[in-house]
Amino acid sequence: MTVTLTQLHAALGGVLHGDPQTRVCRVASLEAAGPDDISFIAHARYAAQIDATLAGTLIVPPHLVDKAKQRGACLEVDDPYVTFARLTQWWRAREEALDADGEPRVHHTASIHPTASVASDAWIGPFAVIEAGAVIQARARIGAHSVIERCAQVGAASRLAPRVVIGRDCQIGDRCVFHAGVVIGADGFGFAPHQGEWVKIEQLGAVRIGHDVEIGANSCVDRGALEDTVIEDGVKLDNLIQIGHNVHIGPHTALAGCVGVAGSAKIGAHCTIGGGAVVLGHLTLADHVHISAASVVMRSILQPGQYSGVFPIDDNKSWEKNAATLRQLHRLRERIKVLENRS
Amino acid sequence: MTVTLTQLHAALGGVLHGDPQTRVCRVASLEAAGPDDISFIAHARYAAQIDATLAGTLIVPPHLVDKAKQRGACLEVDDPYVTFARLTQWWRAREEALDADGEPRVHHTASIHPTASVASDAWIGPFAVIEAGAVIQARARIGAHSVIERCAQVGAASRLAPRVVIGRDCQIGDRCVFHAGVVIGADGFGFAPHQGEWVKIEQLGAVRIGHDVEIGANSCVDRGALEDTVIEDGVKLDNLIQIGHNVHIGPHTALAGCVGVAGSAKIGAHCTIGGGAVVLGHLTLADHVHISAASVVMRSILQPGQYSGVFPIDDNKSWEKNAATLRQLHRLRERIKVLENRS
Amino acid sequence: MTVTLTQLHAALGGVLHGDPQTRVCRVASLEAAGPDDISFIAHARYAAQIDATLAGTLIVPPHLVDKAKQRGACLEVDDPYVTFARLTQWWRAREEALDADGEPRVHHTASIHPTASVASDAWIGPFAVIEAGAVIQARARIGAHSVIERCAQVGAASRLAPRVVIGRDCQIGDRCVFHAGVVIGADGFGFAPHQGEWVKIEQLGAVRIGHDVEIGANSCVDRGALEDTVIEDGVKLDNLIQIGHNVHIGPHTALAGCVGVAGSAKIGAHCTIGGGAVVLGHLTLADHVHISAASVVMRSILQPGQYSGVFPIDDNKSWEKNAATLRQLHRLRERIKVLENRS
Repeated sequence: MTVTLTQLHAALGGVLHGDPQTRVCRVASLEAAGPDDISFIAHARYAAQIDATLAGTLIVPPHLVDKAKQRGACLEVDDPYVTFARLTQWWRAREEALDADGEPRVHHTASIHPTASVASDAWIGPFAVIEAGAVIQARARIGAHSVIERCAQVGAASRLAPRVVIGRDCQIGDRCVFHAGVVIGADGFGFAPHQGEWVKIEQLGAVRIGHDVEIGANSCVDRGALEDTVIEDGVKLDNLIQIGHNVHIGPHTALAGCVGVAGSAKIGAHCTIGGGAVVLGHLTLADHVHISAASVVMRSILQPGQYSGVFPIDDNKSWEKNAATLRQLHRLRERIKVLENRS
Repeated sequence: MTVTLTQLHAALGGVLHGDPQTRVCRVASLEAAGPDDISFIAHARYAAQIDATLAGTLIVPPHLVDKAKQRGACLEVDDPYVTFARLTQWWRAREEALDADGEPRVHHTASIHPTASVASDAWIGPFAVIEAGAVIQARARIGAHSVIERCAQVGAASRLAPRVVIGRDCQIGDRCVFHAGVVIGADGFGFAPHQGEWVKIEQLGAVRIGHDVEIGANSCVDRGALEDTVIEDGVKLDNLIQIGHNVHIGPHTALAGCVGVAGSAKIGAHCTIGGGAVVLGHLTLADHVHISAASVVMRSILQPGQYSGVFPIDDNKSWEKNAATLRQLHRLRERIKVLENRS
Repeated sequence: MTVTLTQLHAALGGVLHGDPQTRVCRVASLEAAGPDDISFIAHARYAAQIDATLAGTLIVPPHLVDKAKQRGACLEVDDPYVTFARLTQWWRAREEALDADGEPRVHHTASIHPTASVASDAWIGPFAVIEAGAVIQARARIGAHSVIERCAQVGAASRLAPRVVIGRDCQIGDRCVFHAGVVIGADGFGFAPHQGEWVKIEQLGAVRIGHDVEIGANSCVDRGALEDTVIEDGVKLDNLIQIGHNVHIGPHTALAGCVGVAGSAKIGAHCTIGGGAVVLGHLTLADHVHISAASVVMRSILQPGQYSGVFPIDDNKSWEKNAATLRQLHRLRERIKVLENRS
């Protein structure tokens, strides 16, 4: 795909310096970019790389324009990182439009129940299953082998990769992106103990997901036991994440890969949770709480801030010594007390 | 769906107080329930909510009947939580019967090998694949896009959600519930090191799963290297769990989400393992061992009880200080010894 | 399946002692083997089991031949564990050849785009989707419900289990084995923060995977943001692993189940990472670095060796005391300093 700077300028705005006919064949990092590529400098700390990069075009903030102009074309914008993000969106949409050209809108192998409602401009992939009463709104895209169960709804312009399952009665908002293998609305993990066995509590709630939510590959959001599990607008979940039943995640919160959130936890807005962290059930996290990767949240956190809890890695020998001592830590404290009282 | 208290009473037993014609439209929590809903009070500590809930009908233990009767209909039972669990089962079964009405038993798109044996009342979903020699027993339900590989068996009344894979020769008992994305019988992780490379050990065992086992979305149980991986009756596995090859899990043990169990571990009966915990390979856990969430089991545990091992979460600054000190813990102990010897 | 020792000897080499017509019906462990089975003794520490095992045939190292011959047939080889691995491969290949007999090469339900290139001896399973421009090389095997997206490539003799997704433009080398539910080339987790919301950075890179790579069930490898995510030859990934965008994994490195590797981490050759470990983003691990299970790598590790960082598990009461004390550890150190200065 080749475009001109004129086209990029029209799409992204900002002030263009250099030849508008400069061609751009690729979006690339500063290190990998060549004369036909566009790259960006998001932070002042990368400014030193201006001289080294071979990128034909650079997206730069105002204070770097003079330096950038000396070496080639540039697009001057207030926030180069956000402009770069929009550039990738524009680029990908253009690629997709080329790919989609001539493709059928509804693949002939898809299985669509006569009572399902599918917008005339929705896209349904091969072997997709749309069950009775399901609703697929305008411009939604249902990937190959995806299953939209009975009475589930997929909002306008939402995009499901291959083999996403949306369980019965679950609702997905507009402009969501779900990657391959996502499971929305499997049963929450609910059992009543009875004479040493587990009696299943059927999960009668559903899942409600807002607009602009992205969910990574093979992640799961369980349906609620009685009321719904809720994920609000703008939430971003990475891959292999587990969201238990009746969890509530506030708007614009982001969870990195492999996070587990146990049932009925309530996570606020604008939080971030690092990869591999675990949030236990029935806890509350306030807005703007940030949990470091691999930490375990064992109590509610009601003040914004950064929280951590990870055993520091060490060479194995040192770790073994420290870990062994750790098991006597409480007694060590007692011994210190004795020493303090002695002196 | 609307039912009457008479119907519920007939299904659940207990003693009915109030108008048998009271209608019930929904099972709901105490907080969310309205006049047409049924809810339950499982523990004495929720008794105070009797006055606040708007639920038309309550399931209560004997000692709360008088209080409950003052405000409306109630069903008196010995164990309200177990009765609630059975109510959800009855409710869900009724919903499903309505949904299934008129549905084909075997979807015309399913691919069933002529040598497979499928019970006449089994249900096979769209695009399911049943390979040569596979056996699907009475009333089993195979979800859309599920694959039952060569000579695998699915027991009576077991229910597989969409896209479950049951690998070749694996056996699933009766009344199991497997959620979307479950993979039974992928190869265990076995390689012989040889001159800096890994030589694959083909996994020639299978997986044997008992009756009444539930497995959550996107969880995996690997086939054994030579003998089988075994999961006994009544085991409950949550989502995104990994069970390595030749693991043995005893009856009625429950594992919460994101747990990993490494190869050849032997977990007893009636154990619970909290979310995100890891059990290393070749270890033994006795019956009635309970592992807290996110703990790492690095040695066999032969006594029943509760076991934990998690770094406590803290504000980031405090954590950094404590974690840095932790790496000198062994030396701190030596310094305490010196002080003790001095005095 | 029944074979003779002559056949096994021809396939595996070594020196055969005993009747070449001895029949072998199964490969089994020393404990489970019977007179018609073959087993192996890999390490001297298992030598004592020679007398107890009922195995009809044993694979043994030279120094155990005399002992083994006294009890039955044996195959003498330099490295019995590697020979056992090759035996499992030979055995499985033979089983598969029997199974495949008479099976169609390309299942009639598969959806193959006219511009895709599929080798004449490739195997394509039921409901597989091969998109425009995709390339499936000689003897590759694409499982049921797998999706090979636009312009993706699968190398010669690579085997994809049911429902593997290979994303657009991703390249898989020769002789790879991918288990059910693997997702290659979902979007990396990239967003630019903007006024409290997240602006998606479309991921324009792909994934490049070398030869002889094995990837376990439901594991994910994300596509790169601009350049590619790279997994080199001979890498082995277990189940439920997450590999972030632009990660680079060197040859012959092995990761156990449930590991998460965050974006742009660079892991060397011949490393091993234990189950449930987490590697944070943008770090470097040198060649021959070994990370213990469940450890969190928070800094680059540039020296080969074994590294660990796990809170030791304990009975819950002891853990609670030690964990509570741990939160005061830095202050304990200060108190020790005071004591030292006093004396």
